[in-house]
Amino acid sequence: MIKMNVKTGRKEELVDITARISAALAETGVADGVCHIYCPHTTCALTINENADPDVRKDLTAGYRDIVSEELPYAHAEGNSTAHIKSSLTGVSLSVFVENSALCLGTWQGVYLCEFDGPRSREVWVKAVKG
Amino acid sequence: MIKMNVKTGRKEELVDITARISAALAETGVADGVCHIYCPHTTCALTINENADPDVRKDLTAGYRDIVSEELPYAHAEGNSTAHIKSSLTGVSLSVFVENSALCLGTWQGVYLCEFDGPRSREVWVKAVKG
Amino acid sequence: MIKMNVKTGRKEELVDITARISAALAETGVADGVCHIYCPHTTCALTINENADPDVRKDLTAGYRDIVSEELPYAHAEGNSTAHIKSSLTGVSLSVFVENSALCLGTWQGVYLCEFDGPRSREVWVKAVKG
Repeated sequence: MIKMNVKTGRKEELVDITARISAALAETGVADGVCHIYCPHTTCALTINENADPDVRKDLTAGYRDIVSEELPYAHAEGNSTAHIKSSLTGVSLSVFVENSALCLGTWQGVYLCEFDGPRSREVWVKAVKG
Repeated sequence: MIKMNVKTGRKEELVDITARISAALAETGVADGVCHIYCPHTTCALTINENADPDVRKDLTAGYRDIVSEELPYAHAEGNSTAHIKSSLTGVSLSVFVENSALCLGTWQGVYLCEFDGPRSREVWVKAVKG
Repeated sequence: MIKMNVKTGRKEELVDITARISAALAETGVADGVCHIYCPHTTCALTINENADPDVRKDLTAGYRDIVSEELPYAHAEGNSTAHIKSSLTGVSLSVFVENSALCLGTWQGVYLCEFDGPRSREVWVKAVKG
């Protein structure tokens, strides 16, 4: 697999990693198949969403913050239970098609690391399978 | 990959695409492996859920509507930020097993396109990997 | 594919199946590739999250319960619509990398069956693809 480091700069944000995933895919040499993307953390996640208007990313962060209450009597002593919940809701594995050595995203799609408990240094893993 | 068009008829609905995914899988000729299903949009998504009682689909739509507030001061000018959030929560990639040339779903499972900002003409992409 | 049975003991709980997934992976003999994990049900799901402090699992269950309202006028007569919604939000398919015959999880990650409508006898399916 190919491992990349992603630095996040805020407590919560979506970091566009599309170009880096494409670069990692090129390294694999797989021209036709499936590109699997994996996030080895439990307080951030991966999503695919709008790549055009950066306001969508802010709205995603705000929407998640509204959905997952900070007010519950969480048991986990680290105080970041909402980040664990957001990570579980969003998911840590993605599978994107590969054709002609390119990542097949929709016109308006980008790949994002969703930071829910930053700022931190994160990893994203990439592996491509022929087929 | 195989691309199919899915017409949605309402602002929000779950469209059963199980039979069409099975037909696409048959086209691939893969008898044993994994069938990857991908949604190239940012305001709809894919889910696997109950295939028997159509009321469950209505409840899923109603549940999502309750979870993602329309009342936040969203920044995105198109006014469909809730659809982006629902798409991110639900996800756009699925992987289902293939054996004996058939999609291996659980007894009560069907594959659904979740429209959150319709009605629209949508695409769903299918690719099978041997293994 | 390899099928395993998972008994759940409560209405809602996260059951750690990491060791059993690793054992199933060993059975497949795949040393390098992707391990796909699939849940053939519609009222439970799969997630990857914290493997250290068991309080996180409790907080995940509590968080999901807070997010998905029991108070909506759901149509589905079985009365378990919230479990269907939680399953759809969480997802039923995961893809984890395999290297040196081992499941590549992050340091703090475990694999969990999320029971939302137990106690029941559940199945989890595993299939590995080389690559």
